[in-house]
Amino acid sequence: MDRNHLFDGLSGKYLFQEVKLRVDLFRQFHNEKRCIFLGIGDTTQPLCNSISQAIIQTGDDLATAHGYRGYGPEQGIIELRSAIQKKLYQSMPHISEEDIFISDGAKCDIQRMHLLCGEKLFVAVQDPSYPAYKDSSLLLRKKIPLSLPIFSKEKQHLDIDLNSLPNGSLIFLCHPNNPTGTLFSREQLSSFIKIATQKEHIIIFDVAYRDYIEGDHLRSIYEISGADEVAIEIGSFSKSAGLSGIRLGWSIVPKKLRYSDGTSIQSDYLRLIGTTFNGASYISQQAGIAALSDIGRKESLEQVQVYKENIKILKAAFHGKKAKVFGGSHAPYLWIATHFKKSWEAFDYFLHSAYIVTTPGIGFGEAGEGFLRLSGFSSKDDAIEASERIAALDI
Amino acid sequence: MDRNHLFDGLSGKYLFQEVKLRVDLFRQFHNEKRCIFLGIGDTTQPLCNSISQAIIQTGDDLATAHGYRGYGPEQGIIELRSAIQKKLYQSMPHISEEDIFISDGAKCDIQRMHLLCGEKLFVAVQDPSYPAYKDSSLLLRKKIPLSLPIFSKEKQHLDIDLNSLPNGSLIFLCHPNNPTGTLFSREQLSSFIKIATQKEHIIIFDVAYRDYIEGDHLRSIYEISGADEVAIEIGSFSKSAGLSGIRLGWSIVPKKLRYSDGTSIQSDYLRLIGTTFNGASYISQQAGIAALSDIGRKESLEQVQVYKENIKILKAAFHGKKAKVFGGSHAPYLWIATHFKKSWEAFDYFLHSAYIVTTPGIGFGEAGEGFLRLSGFSSKDDAIEASERIAALDI
Repeated sequence: MDRNHLFDGLSGKYLFQEVKLRVDLFRQFHNEKRCIFLGIGDTTQPLCNSISQAIIQTGDDLATAHGYRGYGPEQGIIELRSAIQKKLYQSMPHISEEDIFISDGAKCDIQRMHLLCGEKLFVAVQDPSYPAYKDSSLLLRKKIPLSLPIFSKEKQHLDIDLNSLPNGSLIFLCHPNNPTGTLFSREQLSSFIKIATQKEHIIIFDVAYRDYIEGDHLRSIYEISGADEVAIEIGSFSKSAGLSGIRLGWSIVPKKLRYSDGTSIQSDYLRLIGTTFNGASYISQQAGIAALSDIGRKESLEQVQVYKENIKILKAAFHGKKAKVFGGSHAPYLWIATHFKKSWEAFDYFLHSAYIVTTPGIGFGEAGEGFLRLSGFSSKDDAIEASERIAALDI
Repeated sequence: MDRNHLFDGLSGKYLFQEVKLRVDLFRQFHNEKRCIFLGIGDTTQPLCNSISQAIIQTGDDLATAHGYRGYGPEQGIIELRSAIQKKLYQSMPHISEEDIFISDGAKCDIQRMHLLCGEKLFVAVQDPSYPAYKDSSLLLRKKIPLSLPIFSKEKQHLDIDLNSLPNGSLIFLCHPNNPTGTLFSREQLSSFIKIATQKEHIIIFDVAYRDYIEGDHLRSIYEISGADEVAIEIGSFSKSAGLSGIRLGWSIVPKKLRYSDGTSIQSDYLRLIGTTFNGASYISQQAGIAALSDIGRKESLEQVQVYKENIKILKAAFHGKKAKVFGGSHAPYLWIATHFKKSWEAFDYFLHSAYIVTTPGIGFGEAGEGFLRLSGFSSKDDAIEASERIAALDI
């Protein structure tokens, strides 16, 4: 069997697999001090009570004739789709339950989205951004994805010009951006939607960190009129309710969304998931319903606050340092411009000098070279101890 | 955005979506009598106690600092991989934990497997067989998959000739076959493995129904020497432990498996799941560990026996009928050669005359035209009532 040679375009390992390997190796030889993990953006607080209770109840129900469930609809159970509509899209009545597709997480849906489009299509990704956009594009498409730089050591908030992209592109935007925390303004997005309409682009708008946004910034692209004709939105329960290991997310594929030939994208997406997916776990979906209940939402958002507090503690540790620190407001990450030329050198410095695991910025794109990402996903104690270790560093 | 025109090669709906739609429509106008669902092969018995208890315990643990889990390894937790090795592959020590990849179900893994291979490759599927093989191939590859007829109204057990396939093909084999229950003999598989080695084919061997096999027939392709150099095996907890809604399966991608260019398939598969998958739900994985415990295995296999009994009850209903009935021994399905030319006519006849939902054979491939599949996944009472309704039919 011939190999898919598009694998050659990928680095040897997915970013977080590579980080894990290096850390495991380091720990074999250095166990004098405990490592603090501020690398992968992985939730650490125990599940909140309402979600835990829902899982227990479901485990009980499934053992009864009345409560047992086999295959569910590939699109997800209607109770969860309805809860998402009511709790997260209430002010957007043009987004209905039928437009909501439950997934086992954003990464899997990102891959599935690539299967919707013709092979000549160009994909464009923010640089830096979540590596799964670029990696799954490299694996599934012959063309290397176009880079949309949004950040540099010299200048933050570079403007993206969607006009410069070839007609009919697929564009991944992350709001707030992971890793930089950059947000789009309503004006920017309105202009993007206009351009996308004219040039037949489709935008994939990832709001995995929407619950970290402060103030009255936009939480969904569908707050902007016309977005349901050009945009898919991807959401996740991982960062907002700690379901990263339980696997649950959603995508919105609105009924008005059309390919350039005028046919419905939603109808193909339904066919796609019917062919390649069998729905998210019923237990995970029940956990999602609990996370969206009034008490579940309250408990989850309290957990989000803990991670946001951690980020503030870490940010304060850089006070008076040479390194410039960005982010930390709308996302659980700091984006640090180090004096190292290479991100992996900076990664090694943090690991060897402070036993702190970070994520090298280069893993998020070329524009991330020389940067590090620090995550607020830890206990408060770890954030405090990490900040003390950082204070002692020469950076 | 241009559409992926490979969607045109697919029928409008995935088979079981189409069946559901037709049944929903029928029920709107015909509610005189209760429908009995013997269509989709979906488990109906409540989760067995040991699995239910494991889910409850996990729901509890996840709410504690010690028991909480975020992202797990994409390949699955080592405890489950180890349990699969010990309980299902104990006599095959050349299959190690490292070769086992936990999935959220066979359908998803089938799609992922297609991404491993170069675009010129031919895919071959048994006809009839589980529609996801063909459909995901139609969606992901430019070439229409080759059909390997294994059954006809005139003759059962047609021989497959792997020699006739172009070099380097990807071949999906299902053992026991869904829908016909056909098994391969050890001699047949030994010869397939020889041919695959010579002609650089890769075999994907689906054993989703392995626990339904009777007698000393083979349960894994790795029982045959040399199989770990040419075969991937796909397994599932859906039919053996009722986890169809909880989503859990596994694939074995052995370390000795190579592409035609000599490079490792396992290493690409690890990269592939790292890029496009974030692991099965931690709760589902704990359910899988419980299903493989001594008591869990005992309870699950008792449930399998219930479905097998149902099939025997249904098979007896065809005694003295014109319709020829196959299967029912090694799989929870009957494969019925009806006097109708078209499967959908036969489907309608069963639905309208007996309020029994079946699956039209044509949904499993061209060779299934005129056939129906009946499933044993129901309560014993429903199997008995269905058999009484069938007895009254003119078939």
